[in-house]
Amino acid sequence: MDKQHFGQHSSSQFNEELESIRDHMMEMGGLVEQQVGEALEALLTADSQRAERVLEQEKRVDELEITIDEECARVLALRQPAASDLRMIIAVTKAVSDLERIGDESSKIATMAITLAREGESPHGYMEVRHIGNQVRHMLRQTLDAFVRFDADKAVDIAEEDNAVDMEYRSAMRSLVTFMMEDPRSISSILNIIWSLRSLERVGDHTSNIGEQLIFMVKGKDVRHISVAEMQRELKDPE
Amino acid sequence: MDKQHFGQHSSSQFNEELESIRDHMMEMGGLVEQQVGEALEALLTADSQRAERVLEQEKRVDELEITIDEECARVLALRQPAASDLRMIIAVTKAVSDLERIGDESSKIATMAITLAREGESPHGYMEVRHIGNQVRHMLRQTLDAFVRFDADKAVDIAEEDNAVDMEYRSAMRSLVTFMMEDPRSISSILNIIWSLRSLERVGDHTSNIGEQLIFMVKGKDVRHISVAEMQRELKDPE
Repeated sequence: MDKQHFGQHSSSQFNEELESIRDHMMEMGGLVEQQVGEALEALLTADSQRAERVLEQEKRVDELEITIDEECARVLALRQPAASDLRMIIAVTKAVSDLERIGDESSKIATMAITLAREGESPHGYMEVRHIGNQVRHMLRQTLDAFVRFDADKAVDIAEEDNAVDMEYRSAMRSLVTFMMEDPRSISSILNIIWSLRSLERVGDHTSNIGEQLIFMVKGKDVRHISVAEMQRELKDPE
Repeated sequence: MDKQHFGQHSSSQFNEELESIRDHMMEMGGLVEQQVGEALEALLTADSQRAERVLEQEKRVDELEITIDEECARVLALRQPAASDLRMIIAVTKAVSDLERIGDESSKIATMAITLAREGESPHGYMEVRHIGNQVRHMLRQTLDAFVRFDADKAVDIAEEDNAVDMEYRSAMRSLVTFMMEDPRSISSILNIIWSLRSLERVGDHTSNIGEQLIFMVKGKDVRHISVAEMQRELKDPE
């Protein structure tokens, strides 16, 4: 998070603690983003070794989740943060859960990549995986960038993009079910593609949750469970 | 949470705030538990009206999530809770996200119930749905009971039960894929059962997460991402 919003406290110890939370969150975000990209490439190129590397990264992501939560709990206990600092701590704690789950979904995709490399590739669905995969990667990158820049307006674009992903996901599902009916021998391999698409769709949902936490952090407004149009209205209201 | 652990502060205002959080969390837990049960019954009896009622409850669950998070943020800002009070607030905030997601999964099952009632029932999989469904309902009930009683040891049983659910889920998946191959015309309806089973498995995972938060709240130990055996060792260690 930029200097304008972060690290302006008279206690230099407190500043360091907040910067450490920021650094760890960015490290975790970067790792998870890389995991999604690598899992996707592993699936599309049937590369088991690449998929194994995604699985190996999971441990570091889990460690970071625990570290960040500990740091947040310590700040809450010792610094009694108020107003925007408190909102930032709450938002980071929630966002970190979503990041960890994005890491989990990447591991699921990596596991599907290994299965498909071993048991034979699916005759259909790679174009859809590439397309939806690129969309959610873009969403995740934008969200992490917006989070460090305190750019709440960006979260609305992210929510819109997530709606587009959900639509494409449903359409891809329908074609894949049709392919399974036409060629029952490919059911098992197509199902691995279906699971991967579902994981990508979940990555989109978790990314969208992080966008909601970004709005809460910057604007102090809880925009969960509302439509994109309502979200836009909320952001236009004076704070 | 019982009187022994909760509401023993000199400020009666603070007591009331903590009791309100407790009451709302229990209301939310009860609602979500009911949603899982109703969604399951709707699926097993192809009862669309019952499924519709599950979908209607989602709004109330979402409202409770927002209310509880607001209450927790207010306590953090105004009461500067320490030690076990702080851990309780953190644990509740995390547990509430999992409860909300259990509600989401129930809605997904309800949607599958409506589809199956309209498009024709699946020829297979109901026995597995009933069995795994009853297991996760039992897990959820036990977890909510343990949460109010501050019974951290129970969380180990819950983690073990979740492992059993995961095993049964994988075995059910394998048989359903075989049935799809044998009878491609039933692919679409069996897929609806597969999605429902996956949702139930996710309910188990979220319930297990709540159990981990229970351990954190009572023992101050973060037991995420470790095995059941390691969890047991952690709980034996003196606090």
